[in-house]
Amino acid sequence: MEAIIRKFQKELNSGTSALVLLGVLSRAEEPMYGYQIAKLIEAGREDVPVKQGALYPALRSLEAGGLLESQVEPSISGPPRRYYQITDTGRAALVRWQEIWEQTKVFVDDALKGGHDV
Amino acid sequence: MEAIIRKFQKELNSGTSALVLLGVLSRAEEPMYGYQIAKLIEAGREDVPVKQGALYPALRSLEAGGLLESQVEPSISGPPRRYYQITDTGRAALVRWQEIWEQTKVFVDDALKGGHDV
Repeated sequence: MEAIIRKFQKELNSGTSALVLLGVLSRAEEPMYGYQIAKLIEAGREDVPVKQGALYPALRSLEAGGLLESQVEPSISGPPRRYYQITDTGRAALVRWQEIWEQTKVFVDDALKGGHDV
Repeated sequence: MEAIIRKFQKELNSGTSALVLLGVLSRAEEPMYGYQIAKLIEAGREDVPVKQGALYPALRSLEAGGLLESQVEPSISGPPRRYYQITDTGRAALVRWQEIWEQTKVFVDDALKGGHDV
């Protein structure tokens, strides 16, 4: 039973994490590095669907798709950091993804609440 | 760009389709076969995230996990049909999945709308 719960959570996270990252970076006023993004997402939350271990692959995947771009900058307090910012392609994708997300919410909630005559 | 949109839609669907199926079958008064379930989900919708090709594997996966059970019945109008119904384990999983779904909606919407000080 717990394995099924975790599988569901994992699949749902992999579907939404790219949307969350793109949303956060679309409103960032300057480029952000991974740890900053993670802390911002985690702010004030007990149960955070985006795990740190999944964050960096998700950022790289968005960059590979042209939705983000990055540059490495030296840090005074440790190793160099990779800073990410959203691209124009990323902003266009975000608009479409938000539409899909809104449709999905309505669709799932209807199925759960019995919008139709089951 | 279209490939990225489709990839997002596909990942989101694979995360939500099991929840939709379990939700529909939790309210069904009698066992249902695949085509019935598909028609019910599609009712009155132009854009349906659950595609028929994904429906049967999803039903089999839920049965393999003990969330559904099924039996084959002869049909007067064609080949025998496999009828699915939700199990007690499936109802317990649905409660947990709905909690996760509600948390995920809040989490994603906060990230998109800027609930935090980005």
